Amino acid sequence: MIYLDNAATVKPSKNTVALAERILTEDFFNPSALYYPAIELKGEIENTRRDIADILKCKASEIYFTSCATESNNWVFSCGIKNKRGNVVISEGEHPSVYEAALNLKSKGVDVRVIPLTVNGTIDETKLCEAVDDNTALVSVIHVSNETGIVNQIEKLAAKVKNKNKNTFFHSDGVQAFCKVPLNLSGGNIDFYSISAHKIGGIKGAGALYLKSGVNISPLLYGGGQENRMRSGTENVLSVLSFATAIKDFRKPQDFKKVFDYAFDVLSMIPDSQINGLRTANSGYIISLGLKGIKAEVLQHLLCDKGIMIGLGSACSSKNNRNRTLESMRVNREFVEGNVRLSFSYENTFEEVKNAIGTISDTVGYLRSKIHG
Amino acid sequence: MIYLDNAATVKPSKNTVALAERILTEDFFNPSALYYPAIELKGEIENTRRDIADILKCKASEIYFTSCATESNNWVFSCGIKNKRGNVVISEGEHPSVYEAALNLKSKGVDVRVIPLTVNGTIDETKLCEAVDDNTALVSVIHVSNETGIVNQIEKLAAKVKNKNKNTFFHSDGVQAFCKVPLNLSGGNIDFYSISAHKIGGIKGAGALYLKSGVNISPLLYGGGQENRMRSGTENVLSVLSFATAIKDFRKPQDFKKVFDYAFDVLSMIPDSQINGLRTANSGYIISLGLKGIKAEVLQHLLCDKGIMIGLGSACSSKNNRNRTLESMRVNREFVEGNVRLSFSYENTFEEVKNAIGTISDTVGYLRSKIHG
Repeated sequence: MIYLDNAATVKPSKNTVALAERILTEDFFNPSALYYPAIELKGEIENTRRDIADILKCKASEIYFTSCATESNNWVFSCGIKNKRGNVVISEGEHPSVYEAALNLKSKGVDVRVIPLTVNGTIDETKLCEAVDDNTALVSVIHVSNETGIVNQIEKLAAKVKNKNKNTFFHSDGVQAFCKVPLNLSGGNIDFYSISAHKIGGIKGAGALYLKSGVNISPLLYGGGQENRMRSGTENVLSVLSFATAIKDFRKPQDFKKVFDYAFDVLSMIPDSQINGLRTANSGYIISLGLKGIKAEVLQHLLCDKGIMIGLGSACSSKNNRNRTLESMRVNREFVEGNVRLSFSYENTFEEVKNAIGTISDTVGYLRSKIHG
Repeated sequence: MIYLDNAATVKPSKNTVALAERILTEDFFNPSALYYPAIELKGEIENTRRDIADILKCKASEIYFTSCATESNNWVFSCGIKNKRGNVVISEGEHPSVYEAALNLKSKGVDVRVIPLTVNGTIDETKLCEAVDDNTALVSVIHVSNETGIVNQIEKLAAKVKNKNKNTFFHSDGVQAFCKVPLNLSGGNIDFYSISAHKIGGIKGAGALYLKSGVNISPLLYGGGQENRMRSGTENVLSVLSFATAIKDFRKPQDFKKVFDYAFDVLSMIPDSQINGLRTANSGYIISLGLKGIKAEVLQHLLCDKGIMIGLGSACSSKNNRNRTLESMRVNREFVEGNVRLSFSYENTFEEVKNAIGTISDTVGYLRSKIHG
């Protein structure tokens, strides 16, 4: 099997699998218990918090574990705007967990302003700055698009937003960026940042929210007082600790650059195709490939039969035929219909990617010959 | 090690450990993806939903997976009372995830009525019925106390509540009851019921909420539309599927009765001790043991050194010295201070429980001799 849907989930890393065996057979305790092995487990959770903080350049106490990034994003939208006062600004390229959370606020009367993307795939900066005013409570801009892999320069954008209104909260969904794109949260302009374990080789069931110290929002869940009384509930020990093993195993982007560059070069040469978004703005992990005259689902199924797994836009919205991100980038409709997503991880070897791309090219040719022949 | 803190978490069952290996190394896909192995994974999630529904005697479509029972309970309290109109009735014996969620509503102006327990450990039925009136939006009564193991007859209580006000929602936290105490939700008087995987030998990170069909509450999380659009976010596949393996491995209470009865009999004979709550109302999995003149934490640590793990009241509130449940049962203060919780699972053998209880008796005697001698 050649797995090229890493933006949906990355296969758990080797250290993660070993962790699972230990946690499930030996260290299965509830970390709120007060006997020594449970206290040690609590310590491992705190070490993991520090590992994440080291990458994001923030304090460990600013990291709150959640059950997934959707939860992190929803937390920001349910508590980041007090009493539904003021307006909210997001981009057309947001993940559904931000977009739908914003639409929920809109249904309750909040003024939600949706900023289009440029043809490059980044948010339209000028329009973003124009939309922010004295009443803007929250701005949310995705760090790396889950559809195209295009990177928004969120540190710069956050500075511009704060410059316009220093009281506006700035949030970014960093799910596709964490461990892949450098970030320095110590600049202080970003108030909230969401990440997820299973997108880097951890185990599903753990997300985290960076919550800048000094920013006051309501707790998400009430109960036993876990996560500094902000997110009660027994810690999902295994998934939370898998953040640490996954971080350890996840290689630096530069190690992987050759594989990505090869894929980009060769896929670009398929006739009647286009790769969406500006190459130099790509995170180096996702390729959004539009293929004229192809039904993406048919291509996906044929490739699956050949042992190659590719994605169809966001797995989280794959039942939806439309694609907000590509439409906002003004990608031609016939490319949107035939759009597939190839996404990579450090586990993908040059050889397997080369083989997969050969098969993709051949299959596209075969499908087109069946239609036109 | 002899592990007697199963009310905090049950060691993952053998089938659960095998499941983890398969999910983490082979079937690691995102169940929202549309290639065959991902679709099969989605099917396994649906089968698990059916396994749970079979036990609770409800429809599979009435089961919604969450990240933990704290989340399930909070969902009910955040959405089960519309626009904060009407009053809410709970018991003094609720788990913190219900109690604190209710206090949060109270802080927003909701009339929260807290009903005391009887000396038996059950909710005071007469006072419960008196408290329900035309404006009662929600009643929440824990099914089995996490402190004492005492069972509330929730089907009967729900019928009485509905008889008084048919529009009142009835919720029960069933975390310590699921798979241990029979329940039939098809009666229709219970609207919400919360359960958790790791309390029966599943993996932390999965809870579920039974939501009676026809009852309309708002979605908990917005996004990709998972869980029938009610709880978005990538499914925690491993923890969710562990519900099924844990259910399979969890033995029927009668198989375990001999072990529990022995423990109850012998612990009752420790001088200056009392077991809290009515024996005939106990679920058969938890013993709340008060020991006069003992500091519970000291006993816990000494036993831990000898390889025996016991609990101190609820792991979720173990940092809190008070004990709402025992105080409401009018347990004498000196028994509350020296209160420990022994909780069992099908994994505990007669031999190990016998050994542990011998050691507990000896250690209690030793501690008392040090104080008085």
